[in-house]
Amino acid sequence: MPESHARRRHALRSSLRERELDAMLVTDLLNIRYLTGFTGSNAALLVHAADEPDAEGGTVFCTDGRYLAQSEDQVPELERVIERASDLALAGRVAAERARYRRVGFESGHVTVDARDALDDAAGTAELVRAPGLVEQLRLVKDEDEIDALRMACAAADRALAELIEHGGLRAGRTELEVARDLEARMRDHGAAGPSFDTIVAAGPNSAVPHHRPDDSVLAPGDFVKMDFGALVDGYHSDMTRTAVLGEPADWQRELYQLVLAAQAAGRAAVQVGADVREVDAAAREVITEAGYGERFLHGLGHGVGLEIHEAPTLSQRGAGRIAERMAVTVEPGVYLTGRGGVRIEDTLVVRPSTPELLTLTTRELVAV
Amino acid sequence: MPESHARRRHALRSSLRERELDAMLVTDLLNIRYLTGFTGSNAALLVHAADEPDAEGGTVFCTDGRYLAQSEDQVPELERVIERASDLALAGRVAAERARYRRVGFESGHVTVDARDALDDAAGTAELVRAPGLVEQLRLVKDEDEIDALRMACAAADRALAELIEHGGLRAGRTELEVARDLEARMRDHGAAGPSFDTIVAAGPNSAVPHHRPDDSVLAPGDFVKMDFGALVDGYHSDMTRTAVLGEPADWQRELYQLVLAAQAAGRAAVQVGADVREVDAAAREVITEAGYGERFLHGLGHGVGLEIHEAPTLSQRGAGRIAERMAVTVEPGVYLTGRGGVRIEDTLVVRPSTPELLTLTTRELVAV
Repeated sequence: MPESHARRRHALRSSLRERELDAMLVTDLLNIRYLTGFTGSNAALLVHAADEPDAEGGTVFCTDGRYLAQSEDQVPELERVIERASDLALAGRVAAERARYRRVGFESGHVTVDARDALDDAAGTAELVRAPGLVEQLRLVKDEDEIDALRMACAAADRALAELIEHGGLRAGRTELEVARDLEARMRDHGAAGPSFDTIVAAGPNSAVPHHRPDDSVLAPGDFVKMDFGALVDGYHSDMTRTAVLGEPADWQRELYQLVLAAQAAGRAAVQVGADVREVDAAAREVITEAGYGERFLHGLGHGVGLEIHEAPTLSQRGAGRIAERMAVTVEPGVYLTGRGGVRIEDTLVVRPSTPELLTLTTRELVAV
Repeated sequence: MPESHARRRHALRSSLRERELDAMLVTDLLNIRYLTGFTGSNAALLVHAADEPDAEGGTVFCTDGRYLAQSEDQVPELERVIERASDLALAGRVAAERARYRRVGFESGHVTVDARDALDDAAGTAELVRAPGLVEQLRLVKDEDEIDALRMACAAADRALAELIEHGGLRAGRTELEVARDLEARMRDHGAAGPSFDTIVAAGPNSAVPHHRPDDSVLAPGDFVKMDFGALVDGYHSDMTRTAVLGEPADWQRELYQLVLAAQAAGRAAVQVGADVREVDAAAREVITEAGYGERFLHGLGHGVGLEIHEAPTLSQRGAGRIAERMAVTVEPGVYLTGRGGVRIEDTLVVRPSTPELLTLTTRELVAV
């Protein structure tokens, strides 16, 4: 992993030079984790634009005393400063070396109005320049180390669901909450630090609520059971939805399921290098609209996934931009019939030159348990 | 609960009038939850300063379509606007009613530099005025509804630990991670939505690391086992640390434990209305310093707790301010002997006119299991 962090910092330095910035003050913890591997709860990072790949004299990392040992372990290759107010400490470094740091970018999409003032005060004569989204831009395209982590996260979710079904955990009489906890415990058994977001288990009419929170509702024969869940592994999030039926599916359930399945296949097929994100959304949406359920597909088709459960790009009619190789995205159409039930089928996949690589491998056939 | 939310908004309106603000745009989700009870992930709230307690025509709530039903349920008494960009939608309301909204406070400690620009654009001729910490100032002193929630959260943690011990869950041969998961599952069984932070279980030499993350380390006879954990109930966090010994405690363990116990008692006794937070910290710290372990007490004495696990006030030498009735704080001295083991004893308590009210009720006697 240290090599990939160095590569990411190298890419950031190029981006700084393009913007004629001398350096960048990174204060968002996820961006710092991306650039260094550090996982603590307090840090700041000052990346100089000059390309010095060997010594990396231009990159200074700061955290507080709680993380002394951890930072030695996780960030051995960088100069480390130990200070509680990590962002202000590095702004002080900027002030102290004024010839070296004249124009310094800061994350204006993360830094608060009050924090910016404090940084300005600490940075002396340096000019703090808004530089929103520079690291996020790099994070949009995953490297293979990130894809490995996503693959492990998806595998933990796949295995948890397989075990749940195999051990009879998905059955009439259990509550949504029991099923949700069961899934989460099994993901932990398979190496997840925890769920990647609040697990959704929605049975019967609740399955028609896109983001239903599991409660004491009891699973009943004939119910759709929609499960939207994921695992967190090495900071990376998986995201998968499967909808099962308890017992023999009714005709309307088969039809609804097949419709969403066809839309999901169309959406996955549209995830091609160079495609506009709105086209990808439209590819799946058309299938549902033509069947007369366009109004019942209540959300966008998908989203990027990585160090955050929702990140760029947004695959929806409100999104913008084009699909690129090694983006990791979800494809998750759904149709929701209020009072009856709903179906959503979701995978996490990685964009590859030809067909996308599926990271979630659980069958998409309608599972009747 | 609706009455307490109305009371909190009433208090905020007073605070706005004192600052000659016409209104306040609240965008921090915890502050919105505090003022309205809304628990969704997207919302903004515009509170007019005019005191209209009956109709509350001055308060407008905004969230997006996902929360249509939930907001009707949780915020029935307020005017509701459904828009995805909730903060900008309410800034638009400000612009549209320019005579009514001339000076509008915003949360400069939460709003980012980029978001502030967008708000400024949307707010038209209104002046957006920095108003950091207004709601946090109210949150510093808890009302009885909040204390009830904290009490339930503390009870879930108390019961989880009692059950863990009763069922033999704390024993040599288990890993730290197994014990941590066991505690978390038991808290859920007792009504917690989840742990209030990442549970710490630290055995043997690991107990000397203040914020050790539980791993596959195996509990061994003679180990100190430090457990720092809490439950989340209705959005409120409990926080408790207990340190047990596996088997018969050695003399050094008894002595260390008694020292920390005495310091903790001194700290609790110092939590008095009107006391300076540094005096409270000093009361416990002196006990440890006089015993020659001052250098081994590596952190502050405690912190406020409520909708956040760490909130104001800070009970430490770096803190400022005085203790007031109905603040909820932790008292958690610790002594850490690197390579051998450490002890921390922590309670959550509420400041009352005479003695503080303990919310965590687990015995502080040295438990040998």
